[in-house]
Amino acid sequence: MGKTAIEKIISNKSHKDAVAGDIVIADLDLIMAQDGNAPLAIKMLKEELGTSKVFDHEKVILVIDHCGPAPNQGAANLQQIMRQFAEDANIKLFDSGEGVSHVLLPEKGMVKPGDFVIGSDSHTVTYGALNCFGTGMGSTDITTGMYTGQAWVRVPESIKVNLRGSLPPYVSAKDLALEMIRAIGVNGATNMCLEISGDGLKSLNMDERFTLCNMAIEMGGKCAIMPMDEVCQRYLAERMGHIPEGIWSDEHANYIAEHTFDLSSLEPLVALPHSLENIASLREVSGKRVDICFLGTCTNGRLSDMEAASRILKGKKVHPSIRLNITPGSREVYSKSIELGYIQIFIEAGAVITPPGCGACIGTHLGIPGDGEYVLSTANRNFKGRMGNSNSFIILGSPETVAATAIKGSLAAESDIEMEVESYGL
Amino acid sequence: MGKTAIEKIISNKSHKDAVAGDIVIADLDLIMAQDGNAPLAIKMLKEELGTSKVFDHEKVILVIDHCGPAPNQGAANLQQIMRQFAEDANIKLFDSGEGVSHVLLPEKGMVKPGDFVIGSDSHTVTYGALNCFGTGMGSTDITTGMYTGQAWVRVPESIKVNLRGSLPPYVSAKDLALEMIRAIGVNGATNMCLEISGDGLKSLNMDERFTLCNMAIEMGGKCAIMPMDEVCQRYLAERMGHIPEGIWSDEHANYIAEHTFDLSSLEPLVALPHSLENIASLREVSGKRVDICFLGTCTNGRLSDMEAASRILKGKKVHPSIRLNITPGSREVYSKSIELGYIQIFIEAGAVITPPGCGACIGTHLGIPGDGEYVLSTANRNFKGRMGNSNSFIILGSPETVAATAIKGSLAAESDIEMEVESYGL
Repeated sequence: MGKTAIEKIISNKSHKDAVAGDIVIADLDLIMAQDGNAPLAIKMLKEELGTSKVFDHEKVILVIDHCGPAPNQGAANLQQIMRQFAEDANIKLFDSGEGVSHVLLPEKGMVKPGDFVIGSDSHTVTYGALNCFGTGMGSTDITTGMYTGQAWVRVPESIKVNLRGSLPPYVSAKDLALEMIRAIGVNGATNMCLEISGDGLKSLNMDERFTLCNMAIEMGGKCAIMPMDEVCQRYLAERMGHIPEGIWSDEHANYIAEHTFDLSSLEPLVALPHSLENIASLREVSGKRVDICFLGTCTNGRLSDMEAASRILKGKKVHPSIRLNITPGSREVYSKSIELGYIQIFIEAGAVITPPGCGACIGTHLGIPGDGEYVLSTANRNFKGRMGNSNSFIILGSPETVAATAIKGSLAAESDIEMEVESYGL
Repeated sequence: MGKTAIEKIISNKSHKDAVAGDIVIADLDLIMAQDGNAPLAIKMLKEELGTSKVFDHEKVILVIDHCGPAPNQGAANLQQIMRQFAEDANIKLFDSGEGVSHVLLPEKGMVKPGDFVIGSDSHTVTYGALNCFGTGMGSTDITTGMYTGQAWVRVPESIKVNLRGSLPPYVSAKDLALEMIRAIGVNGATNMCLEISGDGLKSLNMDERFTLCNMAIEMGGKCAIMPMDEVCQRYLAERMGHIPEGIWSDEHANYIAEHTFDLSSLEPLVALPHSLENIASLREVSGKRVDICFLGTCTNGRLSDMEAASRILKGKKVHPSIRLNITPGSREVYSKSIELGYIQIFIEAGAVITPPGCGACIGTHLGIPGDGEYVLSTANRNFKGRMGNSNSFIILGSPETVAATAIKGSLAAESDIEMEVESYGL
């Protein structure tokens, strides 16, 4: 019997022959804590374990992304705890405005194939696109990890996701992620690993892969993993200065289930309020009310997402009934978006550009909806109250759908905008 | 006996021969309400006066600048009241991210010489730079103004401020404003008009003039006024498409006091916590602790301010112990700052760029200091708690001082940075 990639990584890290279902203690390569709960982890470390040091100062990273620049005194004081701890423990801290952890860490070359990475954030699964094991853990496990350099983990079963073909025009990786959720279900991968591979993978760039892996947790997944290929190698070489070795599943590895997606047959989708169980064809709900359009987050706040939106918004104006908020995923994404002219396109269209971070996605600041308002967001979750107001409604979609909707003033597809342009004979 | 410019404007608007000390009812040219209190004014209009209309839909403007994009549900719901009212009353609303009212309205050519403008914001005095009468009023007067198109006003005595010479290198209009406050006192112009003129005025561009007039209220001033000259004419021509007539004080107008400032003798100043009574020479307090540097606001959030900071920050990095938050004053300032490369310089230096608005200055969001932290801000007020945390300390200074301090890591002057560069033989 062969092994899955995730079994191999956990075997390596636990120095055991680990298979799905085993519970092992494994060595950690990176521990990330964000401002939503890092202060609690730091408090536990200090008060319960009596230290302000970590097991390895190069393997613990703090990120202030959930609530910065501080919208209130409480948040400001929690950030102070993080800055002081980063100094005491001599660890790297990415402060307010540097970006969303899940955009930042890969960009900085901090995540590599074969790694076991934990983060105090459920979307740590994103890193699977880099052929590693990334998973979210709570403050207690983060604290223990910071102290010991290890974490306990149950080796997940793997679900094989085969991608075939390539995405047609007007369809994005976000639509594929929503299709995967529709097929697999919001609890369909609970505690499992989504191994996403197949011929279709090669047509997806790294940003698109991060989008897919990011949403594994929305199916309950403990993690996602993609094999290393040329696209991934190029990304790693650029970020790390060399190409690390990859981890591949054995040919006869054991999968608990298998799903195949024909990319060429997909269409734009949205998740309607208040659940990812309410996925619908964009076509069917076209014209529905939207008040706020939001482009950003760890799902769709990368350069390709900015490029997609700018392509559609170029020379156009945001509809007067819509507020369009755009949050680049990181300082690098923001900076490159300026260089490439995307930000100027957004500003001229009437968008508001916020500092990189999580902000509106988790409802801490920078664009909380009002009562009764509908938000179309590129984020990954739309449960009631997610964006800071339980009397509002969140629809999830792609950057293309957000941009098209911002122009039309109600739910619309990129193809609606293109058709309009064609009808003017342009 | 001649008349002051402000007496002439109020005489015109009240259709009376009004002199200082008179209380008159005068016609309004523009009424601005910001989100800090517009919702209250709208409520009064609806509930007390039974209407959702205003006396002239072209003369009432709403601006969401104090708290947008909404950092919480409450703010979001108040903004909804404003948007609905703007629709009902058919009036212009500048939504979140368009900019600070006092930067926006002049930019949009909405304020002209001879006008009587009231705003639900004390820094409405800023508009005096455009040779008009701008003053702040509370919600009740704003409501009445929206309904009747008039406001009662006591005609202010004028203090004559003579500017001589021009500012030396490293000294900015903000330093002059602080020098004026030091000379006149924080209550020295209470309920009066500061008429700022003299040969020295011609050396100041419009942005610098707005900075000066903006701070008239910090001396208690009801308003400020500057005569129209070529600089002002050029600005108005560009913004309005034509040059309106100006209002000048008569030669023998009556002034309650007169102050002369020799611009060439000035030096960089700061206002130390927690009052504008604590103005000190920057030289004397150089090296003092600063944690957050903040560039923006209706005092110093204009293009010249961005230019000044970018000149100093170009090719440099923000000191690791400092967070530098930059808030362009308006969409136009932001957009031009991108075009001119300032934003890229700021981002590369490590600054965080927030959407245009008031934000941190009035402590609603976007960079609230933590307990015990020191902020160096280009704003106009440093009383305890102004920025949302009464356990923090605010120092006020110029954009140049903010940029230099951000690089040095503690209070520093532009000349400190320049000297360093020279000492490297560059």
